[in-house]
Amino acid sequence: MADYDVPSRLLLGPGPSPVSDRVRLAMAKPLLGHMDPAFLAIVDRVQDKLRTVFGTNNALTFPVSGTGSAGMQMSLSNFIEPGDSVLVIEQGVFGQRMADAARRLFANVYTIVVPFGSICTLDNVVAMLDAHPDITMVSVVKAETSTGVLQPLDGWAEAIHSRGALLLVDAVTALGGIPVDVDAMQFDIVFSGTQKCLACPPGLAPITVGDRALKELDARKTPVVSWYLDLKAISQYLGKSRAYHHTAPVSMIYALDEALTAIMEEGLPAVIARHQRVAESLWAGLEAMDLYLMVKREYRLPTVATVAIPQGVNDSKVRRRLLGEYGIEIAGGLGDWSGKTWRIGVMGRGAEPGSMLTLIAALRECLEAEGVATPSGIAAFEDIYWKRGWN
Amino acid sequence: MADYDVPSRLLLGPGPSPVSDRVRLAMAKPLLGHMDPAFLAIVDRVQDKLRTVFGTNNALTFPVSGTGSAGMQMSLSNFIEPGDSVLVIEQGVFGQRMADAARRLFANVYTIVVPFGSICTLDNVVAMLDAHPDITMVSVVKAETSTGVLQPLDGWAEAIHSRGALLLVDAVTALGGIPVDVDAMQFDIVFSGTQKCLACPPGLAPITVGDRALKELDARKTPVVSWYLDLKAISQYLGKSRAYHHTAPVSMIYALDEALTAIMEEGLPAVIARHQRVAESLWAGLEAMDLYLMVKREYRLPTVATVAIPQGVNDSKVRRRLLGEYGIEIAGGLGDWSGKTWRIGVMGRGAEPGSMLTLIAALRECLEAEGVATPSGIAAFEDIYWKRGWN
Repeated sequence: MADYDVPSRLLLGPGPSPVSDRVRLAMAKPLLGHMDPAFLAIVDRVQDKLRTVFGTNNALTFPVSGTGSAGMQMSLSNFIEPGDSVLVIEQGVFGQRMADAARRLFANVYTIVVPFGSICTLDNVVAMLDAHPDITMVSVVKAETSTGVLQPLDGWAEAIHSRGALLLVDAVTALGGIPVDVDAMQFDIVFSGTQKCLACPPGLAPITVGDRALKELDARKTPVVSWYLDLKAISQYLGKSRAYHHTAPVSMIYALDEALTAIMEEGLPAVIARHQRVAESLWAGLEAMDLYLMVKREYRLPTVATVAIPQGVNDSKVRRRLLGEYGIEIAGGLGDWSGKTWRIGVMGRGAEPGSMLTLIAALRECLEAEGVATPSGIAAFEDIYWKRGWN
Repeated sequence: MADYDVPSRLLLGPGPSPVSDRVRLAMAKPLLGHMDPAFLAIVDRVQDKLRTVFGTNNALTFPVSGTGSAGMQMSLSNFIEPGDSVLVIEQGVFGQRMADAARRLFANVYTIVVPFGSICTLDNVVAMLDAHPDITMVSVVKAETSTGVLQPLDGWAEAIHSRGALLLVDAVTALGGIPVDVDAMQFDIVFSGTQKCLACPPGLAPITVGDRALKELDARKTPVVSWYLDLKAISQYLGKSRAYHHTAPVSMIYALDEALTAIMEEGLPAVIARHQRVAESLWAGLEAMDLYLMVKREYRLPTVATVAIPQGVNDSKVRRRLLGEYGIEIAGGLGDWSGKTWRIGVMGRGAEPGSMLTLIAALRECLEAEGVATPSGIAAFEDIYWKRGWN
């Protein structure tokens, strides 16, 4: 990468994830205007491919012109009116963030707070909804990037719908890496980011909105507080009228178009299986290194592994060394787990054995430099990745 | 451009404007993480270069993670609290948009509406402020993209500040094309977009915020309604603490970095002079073609020319032909001038004689195809561009 004036990094933190050359180069395509029929055709095909990765037929499925958090902001801004009651499940930093964002929108926010590393049960949700029939929306993070927990959501939509509320799902660290299945799961509003399992640079937030949610939008009594993120106005640009709203981030949409094409070529089930296979192999490698995974296997998210920092090891020194000497980025903990964990992303083009073997080897060197003798994790990784009957 | 699967376009609408190869290729650089020291160094230098083009020493000067309208949204969201009174000058569609966006934020919105093609006088503003001492902010569009009017703002800040209000300036179609001079003009909050005179793809909204505005922000009684656009939270990431807020759109920031470097190399005064020279030449060419410019010369914006569509000429047929046969994009009118004008952008790498001569020649062909015999504008363009003593 000496051709570039930026250093070469192996991005194994919780995003941005590594992207392929074809996606990077797609951004260098000549610009089109946002009202050009040739560009609108690209917007249409991006929407089609997003429907495939979301697993939905929702007409309103598109990339929001902002990073993943803009998808959260749009979801909350459009489906909360001042005084509305919402239930936010807080299993980590990104759940806390949703509660904060909802309060700013003058919502009456109920929360179910579960400890870092745990999940929320449907029984808890149902009890809360039955106690507070004023709740009109439940928001939950499917894949908590701060804890590495995969929240099961089976049966949630039915229970929530039967009590008259919508289900909003944060799928930022899920989409393209684990099954999301919007229609089958009956999720009402789902948002994500491009810089995780879709293997695309950060800058867009895919979102999908179902009919039940659109009906609620139609019934709003107050205008959406954000002009920029007004779903209905934007849907005019996406729809037949092609009415101008704001200038689309053209080059970013080229990148997403290409990243989604790559996923279609590999096949979504194969992409998801690759994430799972690499994750399980990584877990074996880390455990063989006597490292402790913070989340029990049952609820462990394939796309972000949270590893306990061993006693006596200096968190930032290890991460600085990984980055400076090996060019590998991993992240520290967030919130309650700040200083306690490392977060390793298994996402996008990083979800490959070469990346993980490099990390496993380099991390061992860094731990040894800290005076912590560590067994190798290579053989354990190989045992799972190549020797188990994956295909 | 046959190497690409998108058609080659000469982008001479009101944005996005043409960008150079070096800027397109900058987006193809390998990704860095948003917390990587190597990336933070790029963020710092982008802020420095933005200070130069804004003409400011404001510490809080950075690109918002969204397109130009996200800059507007951030400006209003952070400096309006529910019940605040603001004065919005409406000289066109983008002024109307600001009033709409302010009302959504529960502001009490006063407006001064001036007809399309006209300017607002300071006397009007002062009279309004004196009549309504509750007004805490005045917002105005310096360069109205819908009309092609350049709003003079001399003396505005002093008059507005002495009456206890802030001055918010939309410089979307101004920054890098005409002088903005934030500190000299004492503007409090100024936002722009990358896809106009900065010659960078759409996707970021440069913003700068001065001390007077920051004091108001500190004095807010309610949280900023948008989590995503919370200036104070984002300033933590930009400042020494480097606290994570949201994932930066890394590749877009590479593009802006390169686009700003190109401006620094040419020199900001030279870039602005180039826009002015090409604009004046274009005006002469269009007038030689018997076309009527909608805005009188005194208030005419160099960066967007609004041209009356000649009687009997089919607006969309001409634009379709320009795009389809000549690969040239110009835009139709907006709002009151919808169907009445064409809008020609003189921005970024489009502000060059070759682009304009191509347009002048092609537009003549398209008018003739519509049965409107039109004199050539080439010689008139040349007279101004090459024969007047520009240097």
